[in-house]
Amino acid sequence: MTNNNLMKRRNFIKGLGAAGLAAAATPALALSNNSKGVQWHRSVDIAIIGSGFAGLAAAVEAKRLGAKDVEIFEKMSVVGGNSAINGGLFAAPDTPMQRKEGLKDSVETMVADQVAAGRGIAYEDLLRHVAEHANEALQMTIDAGAEYHPYLQQLGGHSVARTYQTTVSCGAGITQPLYKETKKLGVPTHTRAKFEGFLVNDNGDVEGIKIRENYYFGRDNNGEVVNIKVAKGVIMATGGFAQNVAMRMAQDPTLTSEVGCTNAKGATGEGMFEMFRLGAIPVHMAHIQSGPWASPDEGGFGYVSNYSIFNFPHSIAVNLKSGRRFMNEIADRKTRADAELANRDDEGNPMPPIMITSYEHSKKHPTAKKVLKYGVGWKFDSLEELAKHFNIPLKALEKQIDEYNGYVKTGVDKQFGKPMDKAMGKYLKAPFTVVRLWPKVHYCQGGVQITTKAEVVDSFSGKPIKGLYAAGEVTGGIHGVSRLGSCSIPECMVMGMTASRSILKA
Amino acid sequence: MTNNNLMKRRNFIKGLGAAGLAAAATPALALSNNSKGVQWHRSVDIAIIGSGFAGLAAAVEAKRLGAKDVEIFEKMSVVGGNSAINGGLFAAPDTPMQRKEGLKDSVETMVADQVAAGRGIAYEDLLRHVAEHANEALQMTIDAGAEYHPYLQQLGGHSVARTYQTTVSCGAGITQPLYKETKKLGVPTHTRAKFEGFLVNDNGDVEGIKIRENYYFGRDNNGEVVNIKVAKGVIMATGGFAQNVAMRMAQDPTLTSEVGCTNAKGATGEGMFEMFRLGAIPVHMAHIQSGPWASPDEGGFGYVSNYSIFNFPHSIAVNLKSGRRFMNEIADRKTRADAELANRDDEGNPMPPIMITSYEHSKKHPTAKKVLKYGVGWKFDSLEELAKHFNIPLKALEKQIDEYNGYVKTGVDKQFGKPMDKAMGKYLKAPFTVVRLWPKVHYCQGGVQITTKAEVVDSFSGKPIKGLYAAGEVTGGIHGVSRLGSCSIPECMVMGMTASRSILKA
Repeated sequence: MTNNNLMKRRNFIKGLGAAGLAAAATPALALSNNSKGVQWHRSVDIAIIGSGFAGLAAAVEAKRLGAKDVEIFEKMSVVGGNSAINGGLFAAPDTPMQRKEGLKDSVETMVADQVAAGRGIAYEDLLRHVAEHANEALQMTIDAGAEYHPYLQQLGGHSVARTYQTTVSCGAGITQPLYKETKKLGVPTHTRAKFEGFLVNDNGDVEGIKIRENYYFGRDNNGEVVNIKVAKGVIMATGGFAQNVAMRMAQDPTLTSEVGCTNAKGATGEGMFEMFRLGAIPVHMAHIQSGPWASPDEGGFGYVSNYSIFNFPHSIAVNLKSGRRFMNEIADRKTRADAELANRDDEGNPMPPIMITSYEHSKKHPTAKKVLKYGVGWKFDSLEELAKHFNIPLKALEKQIDEYNGYVKTGVDKQFGKPMDKAMGKYLKAPFTVVRLWPKVHYCQGGVQITTKAEVVDSFSGKPIKGLYAAGEVTGGIHGVSRLGSCSIPECMVMGMTASRSILKA
Repeated sequence: MTNNNLMKRRNFIKGLGAAGLAAAATPALALSNNSKGVQWHRSVDIAIIGSGFAGLAAAVEAKRLGAKDVEIFEKMSVVGGNSAINGGLFAAPDTPMQRKEGLKDSVETMVADQVAAGRGIAYEDLLRHVAEHANEALQMTIDAGAEYHPYLQQLGGHSVARTYQTTVSCGAGITQPLYKETKKLGVPTHTRAKFEGFLVNDNGDVEGIKIRENYYFGRDNNGEVVNIKVAKGVIMATGGFAQNVAMRMAQDPTLTSEVGCTNAKGATGEGMFEMFRLGAIPVHMAHIQSGPWASPDEGGFGYVSNYSIFNFPHSIAVNLKSGRRFMNEIADRKTRADAELANRDDEGNPMPPIMITSYEHSKKHPTAKKVLKYGVGWKFDSLEELAKHFNIPLKALEKQIDEYNGYVKTGVDKQFGKPMDKAMGKYLKAPFTVVRLWPKVHYCQGGVQITTKAEVVDSFSGKPIKGLYAAGEVTGGIHGVSRLGSCSIPECMVMGMTASRSILKA
């Protein structure tokens, strides 16, 4: 009896309030989850749970390969999940734009960068599989109508500029075109359709799913549960659990509800934990990534995240007490988040550092206007003004900027070894734009173990669980300790496509 | 349907060979695991799975509290599990021996040491609960007849000497007396009795267990399965998964079957993974600890581990190429293991460092004789001989030893900040004893999430799973990233005792 007591389940998410508490009193109906004798309400060929990058790419690929009845089930009332609200950053090796810009890159180089960030425990076979197919996935988005800035960015931990970004600087620039494409291809997407569990045969093979229709997120046990027989395969593309405070605190007791989170509210991980109940192997659950580019001055992903991702290469991050830099501004995410968290006042309270950028460089990205407009960034005409505003020792800050401008000239950062390629010629000078930095919970490296065929492995048999596939943030292993920025979209899309290929034996 | 397809399960342990493979062909019998309609073969009040520290302490405590029918089920043919073969090191704060030696210590100090090693993610409430009850557990072992060396040791990461060690320098010095105590108290221990899964009611509460009797480890599906009704509670004390190569590689792909392991063969983790199938929360699974005191020259825990744990405080660890120290020899385990693994030749191949000890100090521990007798340690009459044997630059080594002896004199290690309390007056001088060091997989910090009552938490409800308790290495959270040495025995015993107290509401 996996999924025991499904009808009694409460949403174990702190902060849901009265709705969640009331539901706890609902009596148990004790649904069995063996499919034997189950009344099937209807059937599909391929059921995709979740409508983010992974789910949408799986749907498009399945239809391309001739699948008939493909359906997407999304628990929220809107399509796109957490994918729709991130930065829309897409890394791929050896792309047309890299060739145009004369940049050398390869699958091996991209894999090596990620292996380094993964600190020895990343799954290299999965990284290679994704890198090898990243251009296909990129092309799928372009074919569907996604539009990208006409330049590449070099994100933290990448040894070369290889990151595309949507012109809207947002993941919706990809999920919206892909969603339109699924509609064109005849894939129905059911919103407010919550995955409730698997229906399995006596061998533990997945034969169907339970879907709660007319579900409202944040309430519980509302709507009606239908049993859907799945002929070919279920693809779990349900994402991470960064918004599930109890589950993230299980891994890191410091990640309380007080800690900011960039994710969409629906990122609560039930799909992942349901797979563990089925026997999937939990991998790297303890590795929860905080985004070092976030701001304490706004909620969620906000404007500053995109702003600082773009500007880090030609900016400095500065400690308020010392007026000195404290990190390589384009190190990998974990390195930077750890360095930022070390910024404390004398009592040990958080003292968010600032990022200083020349206004003439920041204004080249559309987010510069937005951070100023919404009061989460500041513009200063002189260093004196800036230092006064943040109570930074002026002399020290002047010295730091002089030193840094020396590195811009020589191309060698003697303080932190930051690669200066993208900073060449970009001296720091007034007027300045400034944002404050403080990490927010952003990404769950952990999840279910999968093969390079997107099959979900059983902890006892070591074999794939028949009928079950998973793709994207719900899976674990590929990134190891720390995922590099812009490597999630290619992963989600390639593994979603791969799941459909595996099911259809293409 | 948790535990689907139990009868078909294969032991997913690489290296089991033909027996394991043959079993894969056994036909599925598709046992249901809902207890409805199950034929109960017999019943017990408290079922304890596993006969290591946690299981034995749970059994003794349950009987003390008046429980009637308590039984232990052990899959191996011998009692004691992995507990019986470790170093028999037991940390407790503010003990009689500390007071005798004039050492100040407290629950808070012991907790603080462990919190630091846990690198921010240890469960402080569990650490405190264990530290508060550690003396009771120590007393339980003494009452049962365990004997300890008449001195305390200061292990890596501990800020004070607080570690007892059995006179046999082995965990069997505790498991044997405790086992005798359980027999005296009328607790049957069934060996070759393998836990196969839970039997649960419609609410998911644990009502019984399946036990495969007459089981032979390494074969599969041998013996017969009986259904045992459990009236009061099941205590899972099944240990870690360090010997399950597939499962440890899932967390760290570098921990192949080529990597040494100190654990007993039975440490394969089925009990843990079965709890995940029931809905237990996987915590810190990625944190697998390697013991920095192990030797590449012998299998398993061996003789060198105890030898070097005793000698590290007054010894130096030296890199063969440079002839220099490379770590604080009593830093926490992870810090040292990482430092040792960085010892490489020019091609990047492992180049195990050596530990150098004055023979006059090493000979005070019984293991010194053993490492020499079994050829896993060497004795040299002069530094010249030693340097020649290991091809170390003599001048550099001489200089290093001179420097280090300076630290012994001043009590301040200027190289790595090692606490020198236990090294005072212990100068390094010929003759020397030497062992080689290389980390071995030793301990799984990860496991199921529990409360301070040893209840197992359900991932969806956030509430304890009724009828289920867990204690010891099978649980996760308490140690965070890195467990301090000698903190496992108190944890296992206190949480085993706690489980029985919770069941009996004592």
